Amino acid sequence: MVNKIFMIATFVGVPLSVIGTLMHWSSILMFIIYCLTIVALSSFMGRATESLAIVAGPRIGGLLNATFGNAVELIISIFALKAGLVGVVLASLTGSVLGNLLLVAGLSFFVGGVKFKRQSFNVFDARHNSGLLMFAVIVAFVIPEVFSYEMTKGETLSMSVGISIILMALYLAALFFKLVTHRGVYQHSEGGNEHEEEPEWSQKKSLLILVLATLAVAYVSENLVHTFETVGESFGWTELFIGVIIVAIVGNAAEHASAILMAYKNKMDIAVEIAVGSTLQIAMFVAPLLVLISLLFDTKMPLVFTMPELIAMVTAVLLTIIISNDGETNWFEGLTLLAAYLIMGIGFYLL
Amino acid sequence: MVNKIFMIATFVGVPLSVIGTLMHWSSILMFIIYCLTIVALSSFMGRATESLAIVAGPRIGGLLNATFGNAVELIISIFALKAGLVGVVLASLTGSVLGNLLLVAGLSFFVGGVKFKRQSFNVFDARHNSGLLMFAVIVAFVIPEVFSYEMTKGETLSMSVGISIILMALYLAALFFKLVTHRGVYQHSEGGNEHEEEPEWSQKKSLLILVLATLAVAYVSENLVHTFETVGESFGWTELFIGVIIVAIVGNAAEHASAILMAYKNKMDIAVEIAVGSTLQIAMFVAPLLVLISLLFDTKMPLVFTMPELIAMVTAVLLTIIISNDGETNWFEGLTLLAAYLIMGIGFYLL
Amino acid sequence: MVNKIFMIATFVGVPLSVIGTLMHWSSILMFIIYCLTIVALSSFMGRATESLAIVAGPRIGGLLNATFGNAVELIISIFALKAGLVGVVLASLTGSVLGNLLLVAGLSFFVGGVKFKRQSFNVFDARHNSGLLMFAVIVAFVIPEVFSYEMTKGETLSMSVGISIILMALYLAALFFKLVTHRGVYQHSEGGNEHEEEPEWSQKKSLLILVLATLAVAYVSENLVHTFETVGESFGWTELFIGVIIVAIVGNAAEHASAILMAYKNKMDIAVEIAVGSTLQIAMFVAPLLVLISLLFDTKMPLVFTMPELIAMVTAVLLTIIISNDGETNWFEGLTLLAAYLIMGIGFYLL
Repeated sequence: MVNKIFMIATFVGVPLSVIGTLMHWSSILMFIIYCLTIVALSSFMGRATESLAIVAGPRIGGLLNATFGNAVELIISIFALKAGLVGVVLASLTGSVLGNLLLVAGLSFFVGGVKFKRQSFNVFDARHNSGLLMFAVIVAFVIPEVFSYEMTKGETLSMSVGISIILMALYLAALFFKLVTHRGVYQHSEGGNEHEEEPEWSQKKSLLILVLATLAVAYVSENLVHTFETVGESFGWTELFIGVIIVAIVGNAAEHASAILMAYKNKMDIAVEIAVGSTLQIAMFVAPLLVLISLLFDTKMPLVFTMPELIAMVTAVLLTIIISNDGETNWFEGLTLLAAYLIMGIGFYLL
Repeated sequence: MVNKIFMIATFVGVPLSVIGTLMHWSSILMFIIYCLTIVALSSFMGRATESLAIVAGPRIGGLLNATFGNAVELIISIFALKAGLVGVVLASLTGSVLGNLLLVAGLSFFVGGVKFKRQSFNVFDARHNSGLLMFAVIVAFVIPEVFSYEMTKGETLSMSVGISIILMALYLAALFFKLVTHRGVYQHSEGGNEHEEEPEWSQKKSLLILVLATLAVAYVSENLVHTFETVGESFGWTELFIGVIIVAIVGNAAEHASAILMAYKNKMDIAVEIAVGSTLQIAMFVAPLLVLISLLFDTKMPLVFTMPELIAMVTAVLLTIIISNDGETNWFEGLTLLAAYLIMGIGFYLL
Repeated sequence: MVNKIFMIATFVGVPLSVIGTLMHWSSILMFIIYCLTIVALSSFMGRATESLAIVAGPRIGGLLNATFGNAVELIISIFALKAGLVGVVLASLTGSVLGNLLLVAGLSFFVGGVKFKRQSFNVFDARHNSGLLMFAVIVAFVIPEVFSYEMTKGETLSMSVGISIILMALYLAALFFKLVTHRGVYQHSEGGNEHEEEPEWSQKKSLLILVLATLAVAYVSENLVHTFETVGESFGWTELFIGVIIVAIVGNAAEHASAILMAYKNKMDIAVEIAVGSTLQIAMFVAPLLVLISLLFDTKMPLVFTMPELIAMVTAVLLTIIISNDGETNWFEGLTLLAAYLIMGIGFYLL
């Protein structure tokens, strides 16, 4: 049923996006149309990637998921970079991290926890992910921030490029670790999870949908980016708030839905994998890739967040690690994460 | 015997407080009398609350303990707010957090650890508490600090009010979780702990003592607050040191004593519950309540600590989490916490 | 074979150091000769200390290892202090912490992990060490930094002296805990580790070598310190980079080698003990001792690192704690630590 809604939204949203853009409808109306269209399209991209991943087998499939999982976010960000909106891009990266760790995981734990008293997930994965979160956010994001205070712009950019390469290399190494050398090593006889899955679509159909949806997302994203200024003024939202809260929610809406669904079905391993896995992808793959891509544009993007963005991410990571480190969740842990998201939302709104 | 001393202290201290105030005895003498009287009175309040809690059953009782547990601290703080001493209130909140996490837990672990080689407590409670400490101190206290740098006073206050409401709501949710939905879920057959307790006093007597002691504490606190300036000048203590070290110790002395006693009896679950539970109550209930109450006074109190206060609390929380997360203690862990308290004490003394 | 190389290096390096110094050879050449000579000499000191420790029995032996383990580092630092190079000393302390936690542990985990799929070490020791790392770096190093902003130089120094004494006292208490009151309490029937070891050298020979090597290290260190300025200028290295990366690697090279060797032999308990134990020794014994020793010189050293140094250490400690807290390692965890070291290296190089 959800899929049907997304299909209708796509077949209404894409034409409306094109017509509205050409007819110069009001920015606020277009902003809403663009956002809903992207949410719908990203669900198609997610399903196409998943089908391709099943056909391709676990290794290539894992790689596919890991690279295309945040394609929408990446596309929006590239157009924002092209428009020189470095601040919005950094804000939306922050928003994705916060959204995944606090909002998605929070809703998943809460919704799942209301139905089940205690839910559990693989504690080894939790620890592996904790280490990577610590590395990506607390080492690789904090260090350039603090060091950049005493650096020239050029030095900061050199450092950013260096760190970005290291982040992406370690992300690839993490995939290699998970999909090749230690595949199944930390699984405790959860054989049930490994049953043969049927792809929803054939390989050909998946590829076609993926390409078409990507093109459509690109078209809509490019136009969406140009509505930010007007929308911000109309609603009294800062660029930061648009990036951290709005773009992040739009870019990740489809994922959010499926994580919560999985939690509701008591498949916490998958719910956590979506929330935390997606965070790591943003932090270790999308963010550094955007730093490198920005070198092609006029406005380069250093890996230097604003202090509120950085502190929000650092505290979110610490909270997530503490809450998820025992491999168990309940509704209250979900609520705690949601409360943290709300606190940060208030902060970014007032900033 | 301890109870007898407190009783004598009360029956000597209260009259002396009244007489000394009316006769305008020297501030320093009165400061000492007030402090000792409050310590004695707070022990009566603690015993009365406990008796009421036993009569009322575990749910209402837990709620009672959770709200009246830091009543003395709350009363002193309200009078300090009324006198416009926002700095002292924030300092004494900091001091309560540090005192409970480092001094009380430290002494408990040390004293207990000297007698027993290894002591253990419920690891699920430890993790639940770790999550809340992380949320309250590292998210809810750090975020307003960092965000307030780029905010106007009005925005900072709005943010503080919003965060305060979230903190109190989550605190209530935590009680609901602990006392209702997940009562006993994480208990590992420690049935022995759940034996029927006899209340020390009847319900009527408890209520009477609670009301009388509260009134007396209020009277003494109001006068105590006005001695701070003179005492600070005489001893070379800053407002900060008085708040962080002196008020915090006076306000929590009775609790301190019972936590250490419990550790000595190898009842670590209770000792930890007093130390960490009291910290959470301060951070998630007393502090936000004071922010809201301050709206009634001339000087509003934002939830923004000074940087040394904040960093002291953050490091104390991280240290406590690491040390308590395995559910085991020994004398050395206690000593480590005490050493951290000493370091912070030196810092606040010299500041 | 490694020992033979060190022996040759010593018997070539020491005379060359003396001749070169007297003949005023170029600073860069001498810098290289001094560094290699110190590495070789420190291996002799390590072996002599170990032999003495075996003869002296576990208690005194543990004490010996704990005090002489970083003797080289200490000697270099004292000469740097004497030359007024407080910045280099703080930087090299930082570098030792980073080097041990990230480079040594990282290489050990990686090299061991390439050979063995999963390696494990005593989880109780890991937690004990985590608590101490948290205490030393996150409490005892962070507090003076933050508090010093609002202090005079004199107050900062008083605070530094106070904290240094507390650090050293707690370090001694930790030894007492480990070697006396809780010796073997947390060992899970790993009796195999406790077999009788044969000392490599007799007590007399060990003492003689220790004294001679120490004298030689002292002589070389004094001269090494004076090459820093010229070398820094020639290579475009800052004082900070020399301290954090170069001095730290030279001062700990011998230890590094043996930790990695132990990991390769799957003796992870010893590898971790060398890496983390050495860090704790630096942070809780060498650093505070240097603060106290600096009182004898013209330039006093407060326990106040630069912000980049402090943040690098804090993030390194958090990463190490998360990665080592489960008592298991694999190649990817090693790589993560190495990537963090690389990021910090880039930062310090560009600073």
